[in-house]
Amino acid sequence: MPEVRDIGDGSQDALLVRVQADGLCGWGECETSPLVSIASWDCPMSHSACKPLSASVLGQTLESGKDIQRINALVRTNSFDLLQADHTLSGIDVALWDLLGKKLSEPVYRLLGYSRAYPKIAYASQLFGADPEATHRKARQIAKDVFRAAKFGWGPYGHGTAQQDAEHVHAAREGLGPEAILLVDAGTVWGDNLGLAEQRLPALQACNAVWLEEPFVSGALEAYHHLAKHSGGVKLAGGEGCHNFHQAKNLIDYGNVGYVQVDAGRIGGITTAKAVADYAARRGVQFVNHTFTTDLALSASVQPYAGLETHALCEFPAEPSLLAQEFSVTKLVPDTEGRIHLPEAPGLGVEPDPVALAKYQVAVDIRVADRQVFRSVPITG
Amino acid sequence: MPEVRDIGDGSQDALLVRVQADGLCGWGECETSPLVSIASWDCPMSHSACKPLSASVLGQTLESGKDIQRINALVRTNSFDLLQADHTLSGIDVALWDLLGKKLSEPVYRLLGYSRAYPKIAYASQLFGADPEATHRKARQIAKDVFRAAKFGWGPYGHGTAQQDAEHVHAAREGLGPEAILLVDAGTVWGDNLGLAEQRLPALQACNAVWLEEPFVSGALEAYHHLAKHSGGVKLAGGEGCHNFHQAKNLIDYGNVGYVQVDAGRIGGITTAKAVADYAARRGVQFVNHTFTTDLALSASVQPYAGLETHALCEFPAEPSLLAQEFSVTKLVPDTEGRIHLPEAPGLGVEPDPVALAKYQVAVDIRVADRQVFRSVPITG
Repeated sequence: MPEVRDIGDGSQDALLVRVQADGLCGWGECETSPLVSIASWDCPMSHSACKPLSASVLGQTLESGKDIQRINALVRTNSFDLLQADHTLSGIDVALWDLLGKKLSEPVYRLLGYSRAYPKIAYASQLFGADPEATHRKARQIAKDVFRAAKFGWGPYGHGTAQQDAEHVHAAREGLGPEAILLVDAGTVWGDNLGLAEQRLPALQACNAVWLEEPFVSGALEAYHHLAKHSGGVKLAGGEGCHNFHQAKNLIDYGNVGYVQVDAGRIGGITTAKAVADYAARRGVQFVNHTFTTDLALSASVQPYAGLETHALCEFPAEPSLLAQEFSVTKLVPDTEGRIHLPEAPGLGVEPDPVALAKYQVAVDIRVADRQVFRSVPITG
Repeated sequence: MPEVRDIGDGSQDALLVRVQADGLCGWGECETSPLVSIASWDCPMSHSACKPLSASVLGQTLESGKDIQRINALVRTNSFDLLQADHTLSGIDVALWDLLGKKLSEPVYRLLGYSRAYPKIAYASQLFGADPEATHRKARQIAKDVFRAAKFGWGPYGHGTAQQDAEHVHAAREGLGPEAILLVDAGTVWGDNLGLAEQRLPALQACNAVWLEEPFVSGALEAYHHLAKHSGGVKLAGGEGCHNFHQAKNLIDYGNVGYVQVDAGRIGGITTAKAVADYAARRGVQFVNHTFTTDLALSASVQPYAGLETHALCEFPAEPSLLAQEFSVTKLVPDTEGRIHLPEAPGLGVEPDPVALAKYQVAVDIRVADRQVFRSVPITG
């Protein structure tokens, strides 16, 4: 966006990944700092386990999903000590699945082994209002729309008293009405402080919130574990911060979350997200996408659990930036019952609109010694 | 280094951080991909939780250790979704402690609350030889030196059969003699495969290895947990891959490691490393530094547990690159009993040598749109 504001809206920029082979083009997106991930693509090698991502991607064979799994594993090995690699890999992995789907004329969920994509109940995902009245207005607006579920998060929540937070949660419930699914997102505001999170449980229970999301940072397993014991009907949700399979597995094994939320644009792409979905299903934990950006990211994050019928919820970014709105011609919009359907087109079924995006493109030029590491090419080129 | 080779030697490059205030200069180093961390320093803000590190560091007050803790926490909040931030923060945090020590004329360990720095038993850390004979020669060489402990890792270990690995371990023990402390580092080669790791235990037990390091990636808590149950006298060690406090805590709480190995240049600096040392001491787990680069990094990684007398081992890079050798005039060398002593000088006590380093400096130039995000200044300037 021309102006990026200091708010919790992750759709104000986008890092788009394009992979090309055999005259076909695959698109991916990662949830990342674009410049930092761009630098990781072709940075100098530091040692055998700290190589640029290009070393593991360019020139590889791509015939089946197994090839993408192999490339994914190769990146994890060769860029093991390059911390940013997991986010960058996510965009590349997503683009590879899009490319493979186009090559084989199949939607990605079929390549993942699912025979069909079940519609998901879209929950409108948005920030809390500045005060309970604003939250109430937002909730009323949602209730008038097709949505059967809504999530409120970030903003003032957790920054004031438990009483103030309770007023926000009650305002959300009243605005939505008694039937809608209400979800609350604390955005890791309590770090690993169990007591602060526990104070919020009574209001969440009184308002029948289905989950409390990210009370803690995703590594705070002990805090998750203890809060889950006392949360009653309110399940814990978390996982968007995970950038590899094991972190999500640990949230399930030790953090006792009821919902594991995975962003294919962060965890290492569709490949890693699918591995988490398989594990969650085996362990009786609900898999949910995390998506706060574009329709491309939404399609990518839903594919990994498209065939899991009982994993029915789906995050839907309800307040996308203008950039996210203009990102693609194809839109994933809720049907009259508030459900999202994946496209049946090959790949991810969401083509970025190069003409619309051209005006957002930012030129990047990186030089190391006398070598040009990266220079943007126009998206229309 | 002019040529970076495709081997597991992390001392082939270095990212040096310099902070300046009030006419004083603090130095830090991080274990990172230099270009990627440089990009994270002043990249464009993506949203409120994905800001460049400069936003949380420049212009801050620095009067006491509490200020560094505050800056450290600020970076974690403001750059929460910038994955590379933890590595970059590490170098900055180390440099801030060096600067504060110089300002207050105290070695860093005193600022951390320790009344003295106990000498540590240096273990010579090196790669396995290409074959058991080469490993034997390396071990013999160590035995002739002052070292009372040695670690062999990476290279061929874990890439062949369990029998071949056993031959390497026996060769190391025979070369060292029966008294020396023998440590073995698998470098995460088995991912999370419990069975492959278990096959290696008998040889390690027969050779009285004190620890098996990183059989698995640091997130594979369940695999660590199960292997620890069957490892007998051989303790598990791990933690160098951790880039925040909770990951190290989880290795202790759920992975049951006997030694937690922390690199101040990765985990978020001396501040975070000290928090892990405190936790390890409370839980009866041994804290050990991870260091494979320069004397500056060694000093930074030993400060956090300098005052813990019973945490007696210390990783000592025994095969530093020419860059690491020339890095500073001050060297931390083992005494005649094979022990390392921290400098008693203010700060970290290790000043990089700008004249020696000038020939290694690589110019970096990063532009985003029309803004120069970063341009190297000569180290001598």
